Amino acid sequence: MKTLANDALLRALARQPTAYTPIWLMRQAGRYLPEYNALRERAGSFLALVRTPALAAEATLQPLERFPLDAAIVFSDILTVPDAMGLGLRFAAGEGPRLERPLRDEATIRRLGAPDPARDLRYMLEAIGEARRALAGRVPLIGFAGSPYTLACYMVEGSGSEDWPALKAMLYGRPELLHRILEVNARAVADLLNAQIEAGAQAVMLFDTWGGTLSAARYEEFSLAYSRRVLGALKKESDGRRVPSILFTRGGGNWLEAIAASGCDAAGLDWTVDLDAARRRVGHKVALQGNLDPAVLLAPPQRVREEARHLLDAFGSAPGHVFNLGHGVSPRASIEAVAALVDEVRAYSGKVRARAA
Amino acid sequence: MKTLANDALLRALARQPTAYTPIWLMRQAGRYLPEYNALRERAGSFLALVRTPALAAEATLQPLERFPLDAAIVFSDILTVPDAMGLGLRFAAGEGPRLERPLRDEATIRRLGAPDPARDLRYMLEAIGEARRALAGRVPLIGFAGSPYTLACYMVEGSGSEDWPALKAMLYGRPELLHRILEVNARAVADLLNAQIEAGAQAVMLFDTWGGTLSAARYEEFSLAYSRRVLGALKKESDGRRVPSILFTRGGGNWLEAIAASGCDAAGLDWTVDLDAARRRVGHKVALQGNLDPAVLLAPPQRVREEARHLLDAFGSAPGHVFNLGHGVSPRASIEAVAALVDEVRAYSGKVRARAA
Repeated sequence: MKTLANDALLRALARQPTAYTPIWLMRQAGRYLPEYNALRERAGSFLALVRTPALAAEATLQPLERFPLDAAIVFSDILTVPDAMGLGLRFAAGEGPRLERPLRDEATIRRLGAPDPARDLRYMLEAIGEARRALAGRVPLIGFAGSPYTLACYMVEGSGSEDWPALKAMLYGRPELLHRILEVNARAVADLLNAQIEAGAQAVMLFDTWGGTLSAARYEEFSLAYSRRVLGALKKESDGRRVPSILFTRGGGNWLEAIAASGCDAAGLDWTVDLDAARRRVGHKVALQGNLDPAVLLAPPQRVREEARHLLDAFGSAPGHVFNLGHGVSPRASIEAVAALVDEVRAYSGKVRARAA
Repeated sequence: MKTLANDALLRALARQPTAYTPIWLMRQAGRYLPEYNALRERAGSFLALVRTPALAAEATLQPLERFPLDAAIVFSDILTVPDAMGLGLRFAAGEGPRLERPLRDEATIRRLGAPDPARDLRYMLEAIGEARRALAGRVPLIGFAGSPYTLACYMVEGSGSEDWPALKAMLYGRPELLHRILEVNARAVADLLNAQIEAGAQAVMLFDTWGGTLSAARYEEFSLAYSRRVLGALKKESDGRRVPSILFTRGGGNWLEAIAASGCDAAGLDWTVDLDAARRRVGHKVALQGNLDPAVLLAPPQRVREEARHLLDAFGSAPGHVFNLGHGVSPRASIEAVAALVDEVRAYSGKVRARAA
């Protein structure tokens, strides 16, 4: 393996000093990039793009060609896991994702099993291998999966939802069935992330996009307990270097202390969390990743720079901050805004560190 | 004015002891009730129901005929305010609300003015008067309005949204325009709530449904500052009795201390907040209202009772808790579940208080 030319992300995740605050963006390869839209067109569909390793690797690298980002994240989708379980993933035009065979009856749930990544999700592992080769050690490559709970949301509901009625009816009415799904998911996600690490992922991220829709009393039981199980089962090293894990929880601000104690190396924060308060709440237990409001990228570049400085100041100059948005890049974000953000984060944080040193 | 036969709500909002924990439910007059659906049918449309005082008063009382609730809330809609400002409210079948003339250009925003409640929202004030007469002192009647920020969300975007792109583009790109809208809204909402108090509302509630979509840094500036202005401008007494105010903030768990210091008598909590932790964070500064996951009402009655007891135990037996959901009753909620909830809250909390006394 080549050495890593830019290891700022891995150092920041390990709460080690860096010359500037590293930055990458959730959904950095996405519809705001014309070259991404062209590539998806060429692939024929979003799913074809995800399932073709050479094209997925190309998408992974696209944002790096435009912006001096400090990490790449493999281009894929969290719903490839329920798809590999046989639930039938489909993206209809203009709609969100759908699973054609959601889990509603006990017999189907009892039969549910974890996929074998090497067989059922080989395309994702190959995309990681190809992306690693193409990156040639420029920046680290992040692998990812949905949290067991977030996957279960889609697996029971069959699609995204404002209030998840089928899922919640199972959670409150037949909790043992949901626990069975979550156990399978925890195994599936741990297996997949470990396979990604073997394939070349240098950090891994767990997306708990919907954990924040749970009540305080049920979040620990149905979401965090299973994320903790995944984190505990992960390989900790690859090529003699620690493979850090990031647990992102949308709407998880209420539970930050518990998230920081889950076994992750970093907590990913949405934009509603005050970064300064978060730092004080978790101390130096974990690094923090986030958390600019993605809507800032709809504003003129000068305002983007101001908001970026504001957030960097809120965290302060201690190590352990990875700059990111609090959610994915919007298709409406402007390229000028993203360029201004990446430039400002590096320049301003570099200046602050140089002054502090 | 008749004396109030049941003042448990007002006492709990004032953090005074009560024989049991009072309960009412956001959207307690709603589509889960067949008699509500029949009434809406009779009115011709949701808006006609809202705009006809006799029918709105009838809707207000419907849930009280079924369940021994401790409060009524006037049947209306927060978007009557932008409608009265001339933005054109419309409810299309199967869709959420729409404003036909959203605020997008500076000239229109400069011309925006607060409505005169006595002239432009007379139907809401008359509905309050009729509902007060019909209640005849059984339980207190709650008036309400949307928070200045929540109203602005709809006024700029024109409809509900997942990420509010038009609103957020204005917030980050032309903040002075949004501040101008918020100033008008604060005046409009304070005027309306004061008119409601004069018309007979015995408590008032401010719904900040979308404040929780703001970043930590912007929540104070764009939402809380204007809610505080409204709360500060409210009449504090009617008929020689304090008129308490409740500030409900969906997704506001991160900012509970600031909300408790805003001048409200009670903070309304969504279901993601741990009630015990919230109590410890705000002390006895304000009462707390909430916060059962509305999805619990999709479960069998026995489970509903368990969840209700769990929440009552989390708060403990100190005064200052008003039981409610963390959001409105779902159209899919069962009447049996609601009946079980109301019964259990009164019976269990009464037993606990009697034991503690």
